[in-house]
Amino acid sequence: MKKIVTFGEVMLRLSPPGVGRFAQTDTLTMHFGGTEANVAVSLAQFGLRAQHVTRFPDNGLGRSAAGYLQRHHVDTQHVQYGDGRMGLYFLETGAGSRASQIIYDRVNSAFTRIQPTDVDWDAVLDGADWFHWTGITPALSQGAADCLLAGIQTANRLGVPVSGDIVYRSNLWQYGKTPQQIMPALTEGCTLVLGGKALFSEIYGVVGSTFQEAGRAMMERFPTLRYITDTKRNSISASHNQLSAKLFDGTTVYKSRIYDVQPIIDRIGTGDAYMAGLIYGLLMFNDPQRAVEFGSAASALKHTITGDVNLATVAEVETLEQGDSSGKLKR
Amino acid sequence: MKKIVTFGEVMLRLSPPGVGRFAQTDTLTMHFGGTEANVAVSLAQFGLRAQHVTRFPDNGLGRSAAGYLQRHHVDTQHVQYGDGRMGLYFLETGAGSRASQIIYDRVNSAFTRIQPTDVDWDAVLDGADWFHWTGITPALSQGAADCLLAGIQTANRLGVPVSGDIVYRSNLWQYGKTPQQIMPALTEGCTLVLGGKALFSEIYGVVGSTFQEAGRAMMERFPTLRYITDTKRNSISASHNQLSAKLFDGTTVYKSRIYDVQPIIDRIGTGDAYMAGLIYGLLMFNDPQRAVEFGSAASALKHTITGDVNLATVAEVETLEQGDSSGKLKR
Amino acid sequence: MKKIVTFGEVMLRLSPPGVGRFAQTDTLTMHFGGTEANVAVSLAQFGLRAQHVTRFPDNGLGRSAAGYLQRHHVDTQHVQYGDGRMGLYFLETGAGSRASQIIYDRVNSAFTRIQPTDVDWDAVLDGADWFHWTGITPALSQGAADCLLAGIQTANRLGVPVSGDIVYRSNLWQYGKTPQQIMPALTEGCTLVLGGKALFSEIYGVVGSTFQEAGRAMMERFPTLRYITDTKRNSISASHNQLSAKLFDGTTVYKSRIYDVQPIIDRIGTGDAYMAGLIYGLLMFNDPQRAVEFGSAASALKHTITGDVNLATVAEVETLEQGDSSGKLKR
Amino acid sequence: MKKIVTFGEVMLRLSPPGVGRFAQTDTLTMHFGGTEANVAVSLAQFGLRAQHVTRFPDNGLGRSAAGYLQRHHVDTQHVQYGDGRMGLYFLETGAGSRASQIIYDRVNSAFTRIQPTDVDWDAVLDGADWFHWTGITPALSQGAADCLLAGIQTANRLGVPVSGDIVYRSNLWQYGKTPQQIMPALTEGCTLVLGGKALFSEIYGVVGSTFQEAGRAMMERFPTLRYITDTKRNSISASHNQLSAKLFDGTTVYKSRIYDVQPIIDRIGTGDAYMAGLIYGLLMFNDPQRAVEFGSAASALKHTITGDVNLATVAEVETLEQGDSSGKLKR
Amino acid sequence: MKKIVTFGEVMLRLSPPGVGRFAQTDTLTMHFGGTEANVAVSLAQFGLRAQHVTRFPDNGLGRSAAGYLQRHHVDTQHVQYGDGRMGLYFLETGAGSRASQIIYDRVNSAFTRIQPTDVDWDAVLDGADWFHWTGITPALSQGAADCLLAGIQTANRLGVPVSGDIVYRSNLWQYGKTPQQIMPALTEGCTLVLGGKALFSEIYGVVGSTFQEAGRAMMERFPTLRYITDTKRNSISASHNQLSAKLFDGTTVYKSRIYDVQPIIDRIGTGDAYMAGLIYGLLMFNDPQRAVEFGSAASALKHTITGDVNLATVAEVETLEQGDSSGKLKR
Amino acid sequence: MKKIVTFGEVMLRLSPPGVGRFAQTDTLTMHFGGTEANVAVSLAQFGLRAQHVTRFPDNGLGRSAAGYLQRHHVDTQHVQYGDGRMGLYFLETGAGSRASQIIYDRVNSAFTRIQPTDVDWDAVLDGADWFHWTGITPALSQGAADCLLAGIQTANRLGVPVSGDIVYRSNLWQYGKTPQQIMPALTEGCTLVLGGKALFSEIYGVVGSTFQEAGRAMMERFPTLRYITDTKRNSISASHNQLSAKLFDGTTVYKSRIYDVQPIIDRIGTGDAYMAGLIYGLLMFNDPQRAVEFGSAASALKHTITGDVNLATVAEVETLEQGDSSGKLKR
Repeated sequence: MKKIVTFGEVMLRLSPPGVGRFAQTDTLTMHFGGTEANVAVSLAQFGLRAQHVTRFPDNGLGRSAAGYLQRHHVDTQHVQYGDGRMGLYFLETGAGSRASQIIYDRVNSAFTRIQPTDVDWDAVLDGADWFHWTGITPALSQGAADCLLAGIQTANRLGVPVSGDIVYRSNLWQYGKTPQQIMPALTEGCTLVLGGKALFSEIYGVVGSTFQEAGRAMMERFPTLRYITDTKRNSISASHNQLSAKLFDGTTVYKSRIYDVQPIIDRIGTGDAYMAGLIYGLLMFNDPQRAVEFGSAASALKHTITGDVNLATVAEVETLEQGDSSGKLKR
Repeated sequence: MKKIVTFGEVMLRLSPPGVGRFAQTDTLTMHFGGTEANVAVSLAQFGLRAQHVTRFPDNGLGRSAAGYLQRHHVDTQHVQYGDGRMGLYFLETGAGSRASQIIYDRVNSAFTRIQPTDVDWDAVLDGADWFHWTGITPALSQGAADCLLAGIQTANRLGVPVSGDIVYRSNLWQYGKTPQQIMPALTEGCTLVLGGKALFSEIYGVVGSTFQEAGRAMMERFPTLRYITDTKRNSISASHNQLSAKLFDGTTVYKSRIYDVQPIIDRIGTGDAYMAGLIYGLLMFNDPQRAVEFGSAASALKHTITGDVNLATVAEVETLEQGDSSGKLKR
Repeated sequence: MKKIVTFGEVMLRLSPPGVGRFAQTDTLTMHFGGTEANVAVSLAQFGLRAQHVTRFPDNGLGRSAAGYLQRHHVDTQHVQYGDGRMGLYFLETGAGSRASQIIYDRVNSAFTRIQPTDVDWDAVLDGADWFHWTGITPALSQGAADCLLAGIQTANRLGVPVSGDIVYRSNLWQYGKTPQQIMPALTEGCTLVLGGKALFSEIYGVVGSTFQEAGRAMMERFPTLRYITDTKRNSISASHNQLSAKLFDGTTVYKSRIYDVQPIIDRIGTGDAYMAGLIYGLLMFNDPQRAVEFGSAASALKHTITGDVNLATVAEVETLEQGDSSGKLKR
Repeated sequence: MKKIVTFGEVMLRLSPPGVGRFAQTDTLTMHFGGTEANVAVSLAQFGLRAQHVTRFPDNGLGRSAAGYLQRHHVDTQHVQYGDGRMGLYFLETGAGSRASQIIYDRVNSAFTRIQPTDVDWDAVLDGADWFHWTGITPALSQGAADCLLAGIQTANRLGVPVSGDIVYRSNLWQYGKTPQQIMPALTEGCTLVLGGKALFSEIYGVVGSTFQEAGRAMMERFPTLRYITDTKRNSISASHNQLSAKLFDGTTVYKSRIYDVQPIIDRIGTGDAYMAGLIYGLLMFNDPQRAVEFGSAASALKHTITGDVNLATVAEVETLEQGDSSGKLKR
Repeated sequence: MKKIVTFGEVMLRLSPPGVGRFAQTDTLTMHFGGTEANVAVSLAQFGLRAQHVTRFPDNGLGRSAAGYLQRHHVDTQHVQYGDGRMGLYFLETGAGSRASQIIYDRVNSAFTRIQPTDVDWDAVLDGADWFHWTGITPALSQGAADCLLAGIQTANRLGVPVSGDIVYRSNLWQYGKTPQQIMPALTEGCTLVLGGKALFSEIYGVVGSTFQEAGRAMMERFPTLRYITDTKRNSISASHNQLSAKLFDGTTVYKSRIYDVQPIIDRIGTGDAYMAGLIYGLLMFNDPQRAVEFGSAASALKHTITGDVNLATVAEVETLEQGDSSGKLKR
Repeated sequence: MKKIVTFGEVMLRLSPPGVGRFAQTDTLTMHFGGTEANVAVSLAQFGLRAQHVTRFPDNGLGRSAAGYLQRHHVDTQHVQYGDGRMGLYFLETGAGSRASQIIYDRVNSAFTRIQPTDVDWDAVLDGADWFHWTGITPALSQGAADCLLAGIQTANRLGVPVSGDIVYRSNLWQYGKTPQQIMPALTEGCTLVLGGKALFSEIYGVVGSTFQEAGRAMMERFPTLRYITDTKRNSISASHNQLSAKLFDGTTVYKSRIYDVQPIIDRIGTGDAYMAGLIYGLLMFNDPQRAVEFGSAASALKHTITGDVNLATVAEVETLEQGDSSGKLKR
């Protein structure tokens, strides 16, 4: 059974039931999520060994966060506990023409206090088949960036493939560094990155007039890269989106079908669901076309599942990937 | 007021709230349902006298099951209580491209232990205007099949019309008999069957190249048959279906409009809602075209109602049957 | 900050959760609403000073009703408490082809016992920038009609613009008067009315073959009128509507875009949301075209919000009004 | 199986969950109850045939009220449907030193419009073994009082024993009559009354210095009386009461044990539970001492059950009646 | 109507339903509370004009916090909105021998950023009859301490009586000052303080061997003081406490009865409920003995109400204060 | 960190919310529990490494059951998945004088199909410090009994201490064997048994007139036994119990204090909580008196926690064990 390791902050998400507003609720529904942990949970549903590394506050909330990951079959044996608070975000889920809204409350979380020495990366990555990170982690603190770098370098040393979702959120990066200073070193040694032309240009100064050309330029700048991938979303409303993805392997751009997603139950974590599906596909199928299709189908299914994490099974993704979106009752 | 009798197992349905998954819920919503009892409940909403005959475990669950039927105005005075367990099914309701899933847990239920001597069919069917059964019942146990046969024969003797939904589930039929052995005797004496070409061929060896021809062949094989009916469903997604039905009276095939059903709140029991609507139509309208239309409209409305049973009223069905699907607020 | 005053009954709304039916629920969700108070709540969300005047029973329900308005930032300092019961309505929310249904239970409410002397209109309207009423209020009791008339006349004296939604419900008007007797005096002194040709003809005997002509005739009959407005709804199903509005200023008919609303979470109060948006637009923009567009966008957004009142903000309405219905996540 | 008939109004009870206050809830829990119907439901749990006669509004609430009784195994075949509203009461459940509070909202209910001609008492009471009424019914309207009188007289004619709980609520009796005018005729022909000295004196002018003496005086005044009964409650707090009852048969006063009730989950309907237990005891045991004990134990158990009705079984009551209040787990 | 002003942080409280643990819940119940605002809410229930001054984040949570106060009839017109986060605390409610537990998460809240210039104290305190503060506020930030001092000095200038609950939490006071440095200046000008011997000694170096002597010493040190008060709690379990209070007016120590509180629904805010009751009593009764009794009864009742705030009415407090703790149903 | 292994069936428990009855609920709350797994969960909360071995159905319910154990920090890596159904039990929680009731529905569960070859006991018990079983397991099937015996023998071979709760439920043992045939071989090699005189006599024919004498006789019959323990419960009501325990080490009988437990939130699993506390005490304290006290305090705390498993921490148990039952708020 393949083993995948992910690293990053996990937040407690608090949201009014259904599509209620903060102003009218007396109850908040709890989920836990984080872009990297979401990938781990999804891969655990697919039957792989998924392990997530993070740092939680040493209290009932931190223990519950670990419990949430474990409940969904993710290994947390290398999770650290210590000072700092639980990162939170408050989510109001939209519908139709009303957008979902997030209030982040993650400053000074326990995770931001992580240090490279906290994680024994050789032990964590022992026997691993994949390591995944995103651009959220190095945006949170110097310690998080340093710890991530140590992880990537260990993966490289152990020959573990590395994927990076190079998402850039400008309102993070509050600790005195810019992504331009931090991201290149992290990207070196990556096997796969998720991102598009605009991001490649902004963060790395790598330019290309098409996805393919920009991807090729990235591969020149970062020679370990074997894959570039990106997703596309056409938002018709908060309840109706159209999705697709593409994967470039240096030679060919493999494109998925366009998935019509309606209704949308929960849009959060759908990009992470794509990444998990793609990793699964690349590890299991040896077929880039099928991998990008599997990832896209996984992402489409995530839209029907409440919470940040994709709880779809391989059988469900395969049904959709193979073109059956009928939703017929399974007895 | 017309009196209708139905016979069959009623299960406790347990499902996560809304479109949640088993893996993420700590609460299950209770409904009770069974394909035949669903017909009874629907007819009770239409204002007819509906009586259901079954056998429940003699405990708090069995009493609650009877209470559920009574709450919805079904007469349970001939229900038996005894040993055996409550039949259960666990339902995960899908959405969009994610299918609903059922885990059945009905083996060794109290109903499977029913015997022909348990039911005083003469008393039950006294004054009845219709008797309805389905192919689920004889699939459960020899006792259930025998008891059903006794009921059908009594109905025949008393001149009560009989309808049979000849649904075939291959994973039932575990007691040593095949539908080919059991179903023909039950079908004899039926006034109406719900089924299609493939089923007629598989179960009775009756073939026909079209619905009409197969129906005619069924009527030759089973001379008491006056009606053959079937439904058609086009599944666009778990949240969007298109429905229609047809009814053959030996001469003409009456077709309903196609109903576009979106959103789907609960797909379970929508076939039973059709059957109830059709029976109501045949008993009340003396107009096959209107009966099949009423049944189809009833089925369409059921998709908007949570649970196995159709709680729509005659007025609601008539509004839709007459072409008004606008859903305009009734003050 | 602009100050708006509204006057009318507020009812306790009781509805089964989600799209459940009365027959299957053991729980009712509470909201409070009334067509005029809905306008006040909406304007309070837009940041204006909104004050509602009404009369509540002097018990825990009446205090809770006031608390509901206050929770949503409406000033209730001039609310009266006294004898009589809380007005109620029971709402069953429909879906797809199943219509929503209302059981009103408002007879003999505390509001119907209001008298003109109960309200110090000079104090209430001091500093007000707008006064809004609807045709529900004069339909409830002579006292309510008289008190409203006093309010309108005070507004006229103080130079406060007055809008009236001249909605006509024939099952109200049980106290011995007809709208033809009561409405004309109330309409005199109005700046704006919401209504259409048929209503103008039925209530005032004012006829015109088009909205524009009927509007012009209304302006001749009621010379203080500066605006006539109306909304249009195309009901595809209980879950899918199309909306638009138009505003006539004596010269030009300004039309909004057509808003496609899907899914509909709650249809109640969407007309009031239009009126609130229109009032906001007229007070803040000095641009009739933008006002009617803002009102229509506000109404469209209301369909996504549970309860009678529109909790959308100005920023949300502006996003939609300016053509972005994508519902993209706001971080 | 013994058949018991009860007659009276059933109200929809709406209460905040748990011990919440009106001012802090957004949800109301539904129960249905009425002092006479509560007796019927309790007797149905004891396995007897219980039938309740009442009049409901002809809408979804009235149908749900009937469904509630049926769910709990009460026969509603003689329930009438018509104009008028659903009687309501709003209940805030107290705890400790905070008292429960009720807001009644039952004026002009459908039941108050009942007329003697609405009920075919001969059909209703055919085969009955007991008829039960209370002083609430004649307090509601002349029609209700007249209809009740017809029922009592029919019971007398058919030889059906009659019990009356002569409860007096001064804030009812709004239709122009006093209990002194109405109650004596209803009490004539009664076999059993529930009441105490003060009530006997106030309503009938029958005096006695002790329960026994007053009881004997009542029996002289109303010669059909065979039993006088009363209950006693020592309220330590809203969560802790002590209960007992006594029964006088003209010769002996039978006293129950004192039941210490803690915690109290729901105090409503506990007197009705006593009455039901007493009726059961008198019908089944032929032992006044055991009857009063059974009634008291039933009442004690009711305090642990949410809602107006007692859902305890005979086995549970017997366990407590025989002195086992240990609450030991039954596997 | 008396006007009371309070000043301090309001936090969002998040707790598992009932007595659940963090580790087992997927839902959190929302309340808002803060020791000073709790006093305001309680006084608003008593029918006084209560105004709370604080600073909230300018987002949906801050608006909801204000909405919560308004819902409970507190005036929030002087609330400030700005940067910083919503202060939070997570509460797990205990039972029996299991203690309740709190995880505070209030660092860097919007309130801690308040500055003296943010509040126009002359406007706020205009017409006020009382001003209340606690030792939590100056423990949070220099700005909060300075702003509070400005408020107290304004109250003194305007002749508004001032009460201070001099509670000391050592894990607050993180901004570089000690209570010994800050509290004396705040206490000068106070009319009433809540505290005991140990606190007087630790914070002010004021010693006395009994409550009376320590109180007298405090009055010497702070000559404006007219009252010293303190509460006493005997914790038998998390579900059972005994409470009392005493009030010293420089001459006499007035003691309340001992209130036996069982069950305890919610222990949070019960001290604030005492303070509110005492303030009400001092303002309304001119009788120190009755004031301390009214405060103690209010505190006892608060234990039966979920949330931080006391929703008891004057009538309820008076019933208990006058010795009736029977919890008898109010119809 | 000590490692503990437990083995046995885990059932899905379904119960009406709070103290509701089956007949009145439409929702069931899910917990998972089994007497041995309950011990594992409790020890995991105490910070030890707990591993549970069982067999689940290979469906969404089985995966959820494993997820439940993992959520509470129990290692499930040796859990088997296969055919058979999920064992269930339906629980109605009592209050006061109303007893809790259980409907078991565990026949033919996936666990009953376990075979000795399914579990690699050498791998499971590698590094273990304790192995725990109960008399429920061998009562379920021959395969379960055989598999358990293999586990005990492996533990003996590896020198792992073994505890057995020799609970006897006569309505189990349906597979043709008696406890007298099966239990002795399982008891051989045990270090500790939980049981009393009556059980020792009935199952093993070992007699003694006191706990101490019976314990000494057991130690003679089973020479590996070092400890005999038993618990005592005085049931005052379903909401109020008194608990204590004793432990015999061959020399001395160590007795715990008597714990007064009120209110009881959930009585299920309180014996298992004692066993877990005792095991923790024996492993960590090397002090039999403290071990039995720790176990008893753990059991007392479990009564305040909903579900089958004890979620108390070591700190909480120690507080109570050391005599503080005040339940004072922990900030």
